[in-house]
Amino acid sequence: MKENADLIKLIQLNFSKLSKSQKLIAEYIMANYDKAAFMTAAKLGEVVGVSESTVVRFANTLGYDGYRDLQNDLHELVKNKLTTVQRISLTNDYTNKENLSKRVFKKDIANISKTFDELDYDNFEKAVETILNGERVYVLGLRSSSFLAGYLGFYLNFILNNVKVVTAGPSDVFEQMLKVTSNDVVIGISYPRYSSRTLDALNYVKGKDCKVIGITDSILSPAAQISDITLIANSNMVSFVDSLVAPMSLINALIIAIGMEKREDITNYFEDLESIWKEYSVYNLNSKDKNN
Amino acid sequence: MKENADLIKLIQLNFSKLSKSQKLIAEYIMANYDKAAFMTAAKLGEVVGVSESTVVRFANTLGYDGYRDLQNDLHELVKNKLTTVQRISLTNDYTNKENLSKRVFKKDIANISKTFDELDYDNFEKAVETILNGERVYVLGLRSSSFLAGYLGFYLNFILNNVKVVTAGPSDVFEQMLKVTSNDVVIGISYPRYSSRTLDALNYVKGKDCKVIGITDSILSPAAQISDITLIANSNMVSFVDSLVAPMSLINALIIAIGMEKREDITNYFEDLESIWKEYSVYNLNSKDKNN
Amino acid sequence: MKENADLIKLIQLNFSKLSKSQKLIAEYIMANYDKAAFMTAAKLGEVVGVSESTVVRFANTLGYDGYRDLQNDLHELVKNKLTTVQRISLTNDYTNKENLSKRVFKKDIANISKTFDELDYDNFEKAVETILNGERVYVLGLRSSSFLAGYLGFYLNFILNNVKVVTAGPSDVFEQMLKVTSNDVVIGISYPRYSSRTLDALNYVKGKDCKVIGITDSILSPAAQISDITLIANSNMVSFVDSLVAPMSLINALIIAIGMEKREDITNYFEDLESIWKEYSVYNLNSKDKNN
Amino acid sequence: MKENADLIKLIQLNFSKLSKSQKLIAEYIMANYDKAAFMTAAKLGEVVGVSESTVVRFANTLGYDGYRDLQNDLHELVKNKLTTVQRISLTNDYTNKENLSKRVFKKDIANISKTFDELDYDNFEKAVETILNGERVYVLGLRSSSFLAGYLGFYLNFILNNVKVVTAGPSDVFEQMLKVTSNDVVIGISYPRYSSRTLDALNYVKGKDCKVIGITDSILSPAAQISDITLIANSNMVSFVDSLVAPMSLINALIIAIGMEKREDITNYFEDLESIWKEYSVYNLNSKDKNN
Repeated sequence: MKENADLIKLIQLNFSKLSKSQKLIAEYIMANYDKAAFMTAAKLGEVVGVSESTVVRFANTLGYDGYRDLQNDLHELVKNKLTTVQRISLTNDYTNKENLSKRVFKKDIANISKTFDELDYDNFEKAVETILNGERVYVLGLRSSSFLAGYLGFYLNFILNNVKVVTAGPSDVFEQMLKVTSNDVVIGISYPRYSSRTLDALNYVKGKDCKVIGITDSILSPAAQISDITLIANSNMVSFVDSLVAPMSLINALIIAIGMEKREDITNYFEDLESIWKEYSVYNLNSKDKNN
Repeated sequence: MKENADLIKLIQLNFSKLSKSQKLIAEYIMANYDKAAFMTAAKLGEVVGVSESTVVRFANTLGYDGYRDLQNDLHELVKNKLTTVQRISLTNDYTNKENLSKRVFKKDIANISKTFDELDYDNFEKAVETILNGERVYVLGLRSSSFLAGYLGFYLNFILNNVKVVTAGPSDVFEQMLKVTSNDVVIGISYPRYSSRTLDALNYVKGKDCKVIGITDSILSPAAQISDITLIANSNMVSFVDSLVAPMSLINALIIAIGMEKREDITNYFEDLESIWKEYSVYNLNSKDKNN
Repeated sequence: MKENADLIKLIQLNFSKLSKSQKLIAEYIMANYDKAAFMTAAKLGEVVGVSESTVVRFANTLGYDGYRDLQNDLHELVKNKLTTVQRISLTNDYTNKENLSKRVFKKDIANISKTFDELDYDNFEKAVETILNGERVYVLGLRSSSFLAGYLGFYLNFILNNVKVVTAGPSDVFEQMLKVTSNDVVIGISYPRYSSRTLDALNYVKGKDCKVIGITDSILSPAAQISDITLIANSNMVSFVDSLVAPMSLINALIIAIGMEKREDITNYFEDLESIWKEYSVYNLNSKDKNN
Repeated sequence: MKENADLIKLIQLNFSKLSKSQKLIAEYIMANYDKAAFMTAAKLGEVVGVSESTVVRFANTLGYDGYRDLQNDLHELVKNKLTTVQRISLTNDYTNKENLSKRVFKKDIANISKTFDELDYDNFEKAVETILNGERVYVLGLRSSSFLAGYLGFYLNFILNNVKVVTAGPSDVFEQMLKVTSNDVVIGISYPRYSSRTLDALNYVKGKDCKVIGITDSILSPAAQISDITLIANSNMVSFVDSLVAPMSLINALIIAIGMEKREDITNYFEDLESIWKEYSVYNLNSKDKNN
């Protein structure tokens, strides 16, 4: 009946005619729609500090037949269907820029903690082995995830000699992975609002029977459904930015775990590199050295 | 007298002949050299649970005249002079890969917390205004910092129409900033082991009187010394990886604060983009929508 | 009635049953379909050295009602609708690799000569002025044209301070040109098999009333139809490669003409650069200098 | 005695006091210093239409002891030691922009013809085989040569599954080739004013015993001296631009020759790609198709 895009607008349009208790519910939902989506009416009431029946009346005031209908729309929102415009609109409440900035840090800390607490270490270990055993390792990421793919590739390249970062460029992603075989591994990095091209490309290589490792935000994400091994790290959507801080932390852990298995090799490589870096002054030496 | 590179090797070579108490000191230093460097002998003893004189004897055993000499070498290490090979060697103690991975997450959380706690908000606010008032905004980052520069540029590009990411490419960084004027802003992202070329380029543009905003790890970093405004976010060196998680969190806060000031503009831009994204299926829609 | 893809296959399938004279026609068409497409039956006969009626019978043998029908299919081929697989198939005749390689050079020379002979210099001059007067200059090219766009941007960047190369990357091309205004210039480089995204993007910016300069292969190309000023340089399709040699020559002429108008500025810039290049040893000096 | 940089300035400073015949020599040298450098006084006189003794007096007027001294300075200029500022200064004579533009095309045509005429086909064939037999194929190019490297990689990537373009990026060129072995091939593209980093990197991989194929402008270029196989294509220096048209033509010939050897493989690849390109509307179809 109602477009899911309506829920945020609906609340905003009706805000003035809500009762004081209903306003508390409205504010909670706008700030925490991702949590509210998975609460019963009773639970939502408890968290906000109002009765279950107030929650139901709140749904009715917005034009829903019941709480379940409102919840359906909330689910839609959460399915990463929030457009960027809706997300900017949600931050209107945070009139204070300082608070908004602080919220970024807090959410980032919470996300890394959650990623760490919920990390399935056996799965993580399986990913490490799969990467070490791949004939070729492709690291795929588009849009903002392309920076994570580049970062992961930058470090894997020190350890392994068969790594290829796949991102937007003169050749499209299919052409870059045209020769994937069943002995290869594709690491796909996919975050809301999930790039279609990343998903298409993962489906394409899946058809070639290679191993797919997904780095994504939830076991329910479309990338997780394509992946053989899924590593979860939450992203953080504040306003129009998708913070990729927790995924970067996960990627660091992954790089170090892989590096640990190849410690001797990389020690040799880095010994070579140290002398190259020194010869070409790649890194800064402090003034004391310069005087030496 | 002794090359600073010696300290880590010195400890490792002499480890077997250390007393049990001295081994505790050795292990603590190898895992926490960055903290140990700033402790007195008394304090170091206290933390490790040994006497001050044990700490002094430990220094002597390694061939130092006293604790102060050992501390000098520690200071050198901390001045980001640890080569990558030394850093890999330091992780040898963490024989357990699981623990090492966990340490990454914990250090990342600690770094964001520290960045958040110590953020000079007035300074942050000044950076936001400076960026908004720049005729052109250059975002410079090389090596692993190039991913942060790209990420910051990716988002600033939605808000502002005068942003240029400067990173390694066909044109070198000087050529890319050849026309910087005193009305422009250069955001330089510089993390240990500080790329010399980034510092050279910041000095070059500084000579053209533009505003320099440094995003770096410490007020003592060489980039901070060139910058008009310095934003601090700690990096996290574990083994051969420099985690840039806290800087990314800081960058997110910066993007959102700038976006807040241009909220109306970006709402319009994103409305345009939403229709383009829809037309070209840039983002994934779930199966339910596809059936609609 | 017949799919245009059929013509090449049709000739190949029927080759053995063609008469000796008809084989001459077939061979000529496969090697020169782009010329043959614009010949009358009489002219084609003349070039090949057979009678007009032989040409007509050739068409009939392939199942066409007359030469005009065959010619229609030829026209379709020429409209850059030849798939890459068809083009590889066309080179099967050139069993001799050496001859094929030589053909590349010869076609490239012919293309530059043609580009030079047919250059509308007034139009070229108008393009130079438009670029010099643009508030911003965007240089758009995708796929193999992205190398030309990068090359043009590389040099324009020495002369002008408002040039932005637009190519596939983390941000899509629309986002990169989101803020184009009517004071800006977009140079679109578009070659067969014309990237759809380039054409979509040119149409998008056209809607914003900016000036569009097309660098393309023909006045009939889809890019020419969107452009305010069209600069023509032929491309060279041999097998699966689109040689962009003549467009590169045209781009060189364009860069130099723009540079001539800013000679004093660029002399200053290059004086700065020479000292930077020297300081950072960007270019090789021969051994004699090194001894000095 | 005299810095080679002086010759051009010397001529320009003394121009007014030259005799009419001497002016003819001066103009010829400034426009054709690359040819003049290899002429005897007699030959130069003949070409310009003056006597040999006029040429010698011309040298004396500029302060040289004899023609041989002047010629030495000419040789220095030709050794690609002309700075960009000198080259811009040389084009001052071409006051007519139209003529200058035309000169670009003419020189480009002459360069391709020369490249074609002087191509050592056996050598070319050897390069093709070496590339086909390499375990990995690295394509290295920096600065303006990076566009040629990207272009060559773009096409080789369709044919081979072991190609890596090496150019400036987050990782430096040494890191990108850290794992080169004696089974690998490195194609180095190096044009005046020869990037030092390209030469350093070629020397670095040479030390790892891989095969080096140089694409460069002369058998005397520093890249040629490092290469096992050298492919020559002239570049074209007009003003501040190095036209890479002839090298691009050579690269096209190389791609096609390699493709010919793998014709069956690439036909299969392109059949796959055609269906992907169609599904994702990568290429433009004309309006007629759209109506179908």
